[in-house]
Amino acid sequence: MKKWYKDKEEYLAKLKEAIYLGLVDKDIIYLLFLINRFPYYYTTSSCSGRIQCSSSHIPGLKGEMDIIGKWHQKITVDKVVKLLNKRKDKDIWIAVHPMILHVACRDIEKAWLLLKVARDNGFKHSGIQGIRKDRVMVEITSTERIEAPLRLNGKDTFDHDTLTIFIERINLLLIKSKKRTIRFQQAIEKLHKKDKKQLFREFILFIKNSYR
Amino acid sequence: MKKWYKDKEEYLAKLKEAIYLGLVDKDIIYLLFLINRFPYYYTTSSCSGRIQCSSSHIPGLKGEMDIIGKWHQKITVDKVVKLLNKRKDKDIWIAVHPMILHVACRDIEKAWLLLKVARDNGFKHSGIQGIRKDRVMVEITSTERIEAPLRLNGKDTFDHDTLTIFIERINLLLIKSKKRTIRFQQAIEKLHKKDKKQLFREFILFIKNSYR
Repeated sequence: MKKWYKDKEEYLAKLKEAIYLGLVDKDIIYLLFLINRFPYYYTTSSCSGRIQCSSSHIPGLKGEMDIIGKWHQKITVDKVVKLLNKRKDKDIWIAVHPMILHVACRDIEKAWLLLKVARDNGFKHSGIQGIRKDRVMVEITSTERIEAPLRLNGKDTFDHDTLTIFIERINLLLIKSKKRTIRFQQAIEKLHKKDKKQLFREFILFIKNSYR
Repeated sequence: MKKWYKDKEEYLAKLKEAIYLGLVDKDIIYLLFLINRFPYYYTTSSCSGRIQCSSSHIPGLKGEMDIIGKWHQKITVDKVVKLLNKRKDKDIWIAVHPMILHVACRDIEKAWLLLKVARDNGFKHSGIQGIRKDRVMVEITSTERIEAPLRLNGKDTFDHDTLTIFIERINLLLIKSKKRTIRFQQAIEKLHKKDKKQLFREFILFIKNSYR
């Protein structure tokens, strides 16, 4: 159990530093606070869902993929056109990825509780990824995504009108993804069985603490 | 334990019927046999990886998505053009999905063993999805996928040359996916610690049995 608290402390220190450095996307900070506030959970990595451009022959080539743009909010077609004009890469893909969250849980019962909340709130593809004596690792995510080519063999794939409609759909999927994250966040908030205002005050303290 | 064997028997009977009716894609039948041959596993659903066309505003809209084409092998650009010409849907998407497998395990140790093999052979996003007294459910899958629009607001998104290159990439990702499935299958085969020829003879019997 000693190891658990030591590990949690280390991860929390890393998280606070990442918040301080602006490396954690702000849409997910409150959710991370809420999970870490339980004595039996701590988060080890997270993304609230994002739009991403990469240079790659096909999607998912680990080590051969170069991320050339990343946004946690809606994007404009101009932003994409600008990126395309700037980059000389032969192949460029655009993606919408859902929230992904890794949570260390103190035991299997607590892992199970978290998974139930995740599954009940739209993250159907969540599961236990690893079991060690000192912790159970849970991954929370869903499968809804877009992965489409913007450029193939040096030629842009969409004309401007089509790209405009496509970017609208991309934004729509991102928003849908973010709404699901909020739904999950509300369910986790409820799990605390505490006054929301009180929780939020504690969150402000947590944030202040990150900036010290 | 009695319930375990009864459930397994039921699922195996369903699987054999599905094989008989040609509903199981043939690329995965040997793998399913290998898993079900262990007394402590049975498979409840599977797909070896596929290319899929659907009619949908954005990907992942459950209940609002209509699958209009499905192939477990490489496709030609002509096949896609033919589908596009035939269908009047306003929005059409094409996808490559990785293998997905659901396996019931008799206990958490056996679930863990299967997950280790899956993770060591490229299925990094696998996990335990449910724990009941009588079984532990494991999902085996990966995240590499394509989800791209072929038609938006009634207009086809790619010109013929671009579509040709894109379909090549789609086939490439599918083949990569299938190769990973074979790697996993070989690892499961090894786990049996049995002569491969003997295993294959048993497989032939299993198939014959499905056709009775």
